[in-house]
Amino acid sequence: MNGIVLSSTRNPLLKTFRLAAAQSRRVAPDLALAEGIRILEEVVRSGRTMIAAVLSEDFGKTPRQEALLTALATAHVRTYRASDRVFRSISSVPEPQGAIALVRMPPASLKDIDPGTQAVVLFACGIQDPGNLGTLIRSAAAAGCSLVCTTTNTTSVRNPKAIRASAGAFFRLPLAENAAPAEVIAYCRKRKLQVFRTDARSGLEYFKADLRSPFALLLGNEAHGFPADEWLDFPALRIPMAGAVESLNVAAAGAVVLFEACRQRSAALNRQ
Amino acid sequence: MNGIVLSSTRNPLLKTFRLAAAQSRRVAPDLALAEGIRILEEVVRSGRTMIAAVLSEDFGKTPRQEALLTALATAHVRTYRASDRVFRSISSVPEPQGAIALVRMPPASLKDIDPGTQAVVLFACGIQDPGNLGTLIRSAAAAGCSLVCTTTNTTSVRNPKAIRASAGAFFRLPLAENAAPAEVIAYCRKRKLQVFRTDARSGLEYFKADLRSPFALLLGNEAHGFPADEWLDFPALRIPMAGAVESLNVAAAGAVVLFEACRQRSAALNRQ
Repeated sequence: MNGIVLSSTRNPLLKTFRLAAAQSRRVAPDLALAEGIRILEEVVRSGRTMIAAVLSEDFGKTPRQEALLTALATAHVRTYRASDRVFRSISSVPEPQGAIALVRMPPASLKDIDPGTQAVVLFACGIQDPGNLGTLIRSAAAAGCSLVCTTTNTTSVRNPKAIRASAGAFFRLPLAENAAPAEVIAYCRKRKLQVFRTDARSGLEYFKADLRSPFALLLGNEAHGFPADEWLDFPALRIPMAGAVESLNVAAAGAVVLFEACRQRSAALNRQ
Repeated sequence: MNGIVLSSTRNPLLKTFRLAAAQSRRVAPDLALAEGIRILEEVVRSGRTMIAAVLSEDFGKTPRQEALLTALATAHVRTYRASDRVFRSISSVPEPQGAIALVRMPPASLKDIDPGTQAVVLFACGIQDPGNLGTLIRSAAAAGCSLVCTTTNTTSVRNPKAIRASAGAFFRLPLAENAAPAEVIAYCRKRKLQVFRTDARSGLEYFKADLRSPFALLLGNEAHGFPADEWLDFPALRIPMAGAVESLNVAAAGAVVLFEACRQRSAALNRQ
């Protein structure tokens, strides 16, 4: 077994892990926590710098665990071992997989991210559930989105639950955080993105919109949608729903629209 | 304030609430728990029988709460009041909304459910996360599915978290539970449903499949997909994904395929 053993839950390094889990902007604005084997594998693939990794005492017995240890060693990550009790003091899941790392991830500025010529940009405008936000980031990566950006009053993308739900896409997709509405609007104008928002009740059926050109999709709050003053001028896309159903889960709605864009773009390519 | 006040957490009625939350097959196989204002509104709309409702002492002050009280009274639901402490002993959320009810919901048998002539049937084959299962039920209702059925070794649809994630669709969509694989296959054959499963790596691009005819969609386990022996003979639908992304969240994947079926059917109607 390699690595220094951390025997006290009061070790200062572990305090930094806990601050990163709490998304402390004061102490750990540049850090994010990666927990679980699959998420750590994604961090390795992303090429991001890991400050430190903590592994449970018995981690490394399966071939997949062993491969992760090798990858951490190759990347020269400082690796520590912790007893189950100490490991649980920094874990954010009920059944830890025994691997967690602090990743350097400075916040990116929206205006510096080039969405490219085939842009699909997702803006999370007030989403509150970290699971929904993470699932959207995962879908956005799968749909080939250029970037995901959260606006002010959206839950933090650095919430460990959001990072887990993203299945690691959090570390690989260009992300911007806490953009003000004016900044979002200026960005879309400058980058010549057509802007759509979703709406459960009115608007163009989403599959009738031309999603082949560069566009931005705004997704609002789970319960309250968009605050009236900022976003409602943008054209709405509606997902037609059966019977008396009021709305879809926001992550489901996002996936439906993003993959419709993929479908349209794939069909356009095939016609060329 | 109306209703008998429950002052002890050991009240036998509250025990039944807790058993229903734990999905006890021995004691409460016919019961399901509805918690939260929106879910209770859906139960009222569904016309299902509520055995009893427990409300927190101060519930009924907003117009929406008041409307729910009226609906419960109109439906002759036995209503109790509980202190915050007692209410929390039966609640399954960290911030209870002060309304919870026991609903009579006998398990339905798959073979007795007629999927209709425009059938879309969703089978959850091994899904483990109650939030994913509930979100799928919500999407299935919104996409006009005929029924959702879970197979053996799928998490219980009666898990309070699944019911909450369904946004109440659990009470309104035809549901069958714990079907054996052989039963599912016999059902699809008898009802002449074309059967598709999803696959992250191989298969027909989902939008190239003809989803206008009656079909069943099988969704596998979040991490392990389908057990090799039972389902792999069915044709696979693949959602093409960008870059190195391995897979979508199962609830996102389900929504994408179900709404593609809606899109195709809507386009077919418009051509008639």
